[in-house]
This record gives sequence, C-alpha cells and structure tokens, in this order.
Amino acid sequence: MKRGRIAFQGAIHQVTQAADGRVQLADGRLLNEAEVEWLPPVVPGAVFALGLNYADHAKELAFKAPEVPLAFLKGPNTIVGHRAQTRRPADATYMHYECELAVVIGKTGKNLSKAEAMDIVAGYTVANDYAIRDYLENYYRPNLRVKNRDGCTPLGPWLVDAADVPNPMSLKLTTRVNGKTTQQGTTSDMIFDIATLIEYLSSFMTLNPGDIILTGTPEGLADVKAGDVIETEVEGVCCLINTIVDDQTYFATV
Amino acid sequence: MKRGRIAFQGAIHQVTQAADGRVQLADGRLLNEAEVEWLPPVVPGAVFALGLNYADHAKELAFKAPEVPLAFLKGPNTIVGHRAQTRRPADATYMHYECELAVVIGKTGKNLSKAEAMDIVAGYTVANDYAIRDYLENYYRPNLRVKNRDGCTPLGPWLVDAADVPNPMSLKLTTRVNGKTTQQGTTSDMIFDIATLIEYLSSFMTLNPGDIILTGTPEGLADVKAGDVIETEVEGVCCLINTIVDDQTYFATV
Repeated sequence: MKRGRIAFQGAIHQVTQAADGRVQLADGRLLNEAEVEWLPPVVPGAVFALGLNYADHAKELAFKAPEVPLAFLKGPNTIVGHRAQTRRPADATYMHYECELAVVIGKTGKNLSKAEAMDIVAGYTVANDYAIRDYLENYYRPNLRVKNRDGCTPLGPWLVDAADVPNPMSLKLTTRVNGKTTQQGTTSDMIFDIATLIEYLSSFMTLNPGDIILTGTPEGLADVKAGDVIETEVEGVCCLINTIVDDQTYFATV
Repeated sequence: MKRGRIAFQGAIHQVTQAADGRVQLADGRLLNEAEVEWLPPVVPGAVFALGLNYADHAKELAFKAPEVPLAFLKGPNTIVGHRAQTRRPADATYMHYECELAVVIGKTGKNLSKAEAMDIVAGYTVANDYAIRDYLENYYRPNLRVKNRDGCTPLGPWLVDAADVPNPMSLKLTTRVNGKTTQQGTTSDMIFDIATLIEYLSSFMTLNPGDIILTGTPEGLADVKAGDVIETEVEGVCCLINTIVDDQTYFATV
C-alpha cells in the first residue's frame, strides 16, 4: 500500500494510491496527483540524516569512509512535501540535490540488535536532502547553513509499507534534472545499512513512530539552478518532484 | 509573569507562579512546586544549542573562540521538564552539566537585524544541556551520542516573559551539585549575544513560535554521578532541578 497526506478543500487527508496512479481519499474520491497540495507522507518526528553513507560518494569527495554513522538532525522547518518549491538562496553559488531512501519508523525502539531493527520500520519514502555547499566547512558534520534552510528537504510523495519493499538494500536511486539523468546509484552501496543505522541510533536514544532516517546519497551530485525540475526516484518506492526557484519567485509566491 | 506547564490529574495545564511561589492553575487551585509533574514550559519546536559560546569555556577547553555561532539541533527526545530524572548511561565515563539561558521564540522571524531580533523573543527559561564527553570527537559540532540522549536536556520550570527580564545579557548563571556551587558565570560573557544568535539563525531559516535557543554555557563543568541533584539557575529567570540516576534506577522507574 502507498499512503500519502494531502491538504484538500480546507482539511488534511490521509490518502492512498489508486490502481490508476491517482490519489484516493478515504471516501473514495479520486484526484490527479499533479494537482493536489502534497504534505510529507507522515508528520515528522525526529529527522536524522547521514553524511557520507555511500562509499562512492565519500570517494567522490575525496574523504575517508566514516567508521561510525555520521548522523545529524534536520529541523522541522526543512521538511516539505512532493511538488513543493525549494529556494536557491541568493547567497548560494553551489546548491546540490541528494536523492535518498528515507526510512520511516513505525514503532518505538531502544537498544535494538540488527536482527530486531527492521521490525520497527513502518515503510519507506524518498527524500531530496539539498545542501548549500558554499558553507560546508566540515563534511563529517554539516552545519545548519548547509543543511537547515527552509524547505530544503522535500519528502514523499508516498509512504510505501515495509511489507511491499522486501529488499530495501537493493534499490536503484536515480535523480533527473529537467528530465536528464544526473545521479544513479543503489542502496546496496550504503556503508551502514538500514539495520545498522537503526541499531546505532537506538543504542543511545529511543526511536519513536514518525522518526525518519535519511540514509545518505550516492555519487553524482550537481549544481541546480532556478527553474530546474528535480526528480529523485527510488525504485519500488516513489518519485519525488521538486522545483528550484530563486528568491524573487519564492517570495512572490508566499 | 512566570508561566509553566504541568500534568495534573490526567490533563495538561498551563500554570503560573503564585505570589507565594506555589503553582497556580487557571481555575485558581494552588499546588506545591515540588509535588507536580512538570513538563517543558512550552511545547518545543526546533531546539538549537550552541557550542563554545562563552569565551571562558572555550578557553577552558583550550579551543579558539568560533567566528560564527556553532549552532546545532537537539532532538525532541532530549527535552524533559523540571525535576525529571536524567540517566547517566553505563557507557559514560564523563558526563557533565551545562547551565544555560534558554531563549523562547514567540513570533515568526526571518532576516531579522540585531535591532529587530529581540522583538520575537517570548521569554526565557533555563536549560541543562548535559553532554557525554566520552564521545566528543569534535567540539565544534558535537555528535548525537554526546548531545542527543533521551532526557539529556531538562528545561524549565518557568517561562519568564521577556518584559520581566529587561537585561538578559547581564544575568548570573549558577550550577550547584548537591548544594555546592560548581559553576558560575554571567550571560555578559557570551561570544555571540542573543540578538546576534537570532540575526544569524534567521538569516538562513525561519524562526517560529516555540523554537528555543540554548545559548551555551560558561566554564566550570564537572562530572556528575548517579544520585547527584543538579540545580541550574539563571538569575531572575528560574532554578531548574534535576536528578542523575544510573541505568538500574532509570529503568526501574519507567
């Protein structure tokens, strides 16, 4: 089952994906996917992101692979839904996308072994964890100017039940900029796999339903410009669409 | 006015401090401060903490003072109220308190100048931003094992209206461990003052009501042990009380 959240006619609705791809409300009404106001598929709790979790990407950046997961937190201001606009701020000279498999926690978990870890996963969605590289003084722990801008982390559109993703460690990741493929990878190249990330985080804190782990991105990053339409897709999960806008457009629309 | 939040007889109540120091419910009932279940004085939005924001503390750690605020995020799992127990995990060999003035945002703010910054402050409370120093590989951006344990950031008990704290940049900070003073400082020693922190954060993201800025701690840190009662007090704001417990006690009580 693919589950989403939209705002429609003054209310927030839990929706599912109909057989024809349209958005189905609980009362049966069907809406066009491109015409609804998408929200993140779950109300986010703590959102964790990972630095350098793909060996090829670490190599691309000429960094040694980390020995423990380089986890950091994302603020609630960063998370937006499918088809949102993301601002390229005027002070950025290099802003890149990051296609990521996002793991949504469904049950409370603490001190979980790798064998137990996957039991608390509700499902999966897609994140695009944009970065303003200009301010990156430390790849191992990016600062808030790099990773915590408003709306810099689109998420969605669908939460796909874990049961429908039997092998999350073998999924293709693809980013297309204006229809042209610019990033390709596979979750099998993660340095710390999902079970290890859950084991690690739950070893020192409690994971709660609604918490989300953005599992990192493979190589193939590129600068994005205002007007670019970015599609980040994870095979068998969903395709997240997002448009980059400049300050003028962004502030004209809000 | 001093405002708090407590759980009492199955409901969450907004309370105020009565003239005699007791906790007053909106319907006038008065409760003993030491006997109620305190919650953080506001429902926290994004919680920011600062590394090395007091010159004496940076010096104590033999670090150069930072050139921009070293802001990082705290997860929602870390925040607990007054008189909560905080666990000293079995894997810690050095866990220290950090007495901090906490600034609570009351209005939405973006691109604020220093002159405008204080207008969005709702008020002040006290935080104790515990750290497990064992895992500190980088003072400039502490990792989640150091700063994101469950319940490691008590907050409260009172939110004091900004109007009642005319000069927040000249307040004494004091920590007492089992009644003995171990940390003393003043907010006048902050490297980046409150207005500068708000200007900085709002320059690249939106600050929202309920967001909280923990403004850093002065020198005088010391290891805490199970059984220790820690009082962190900011002059004219409030005194936050917290007890350290070991794994056995912590897990016996929950």
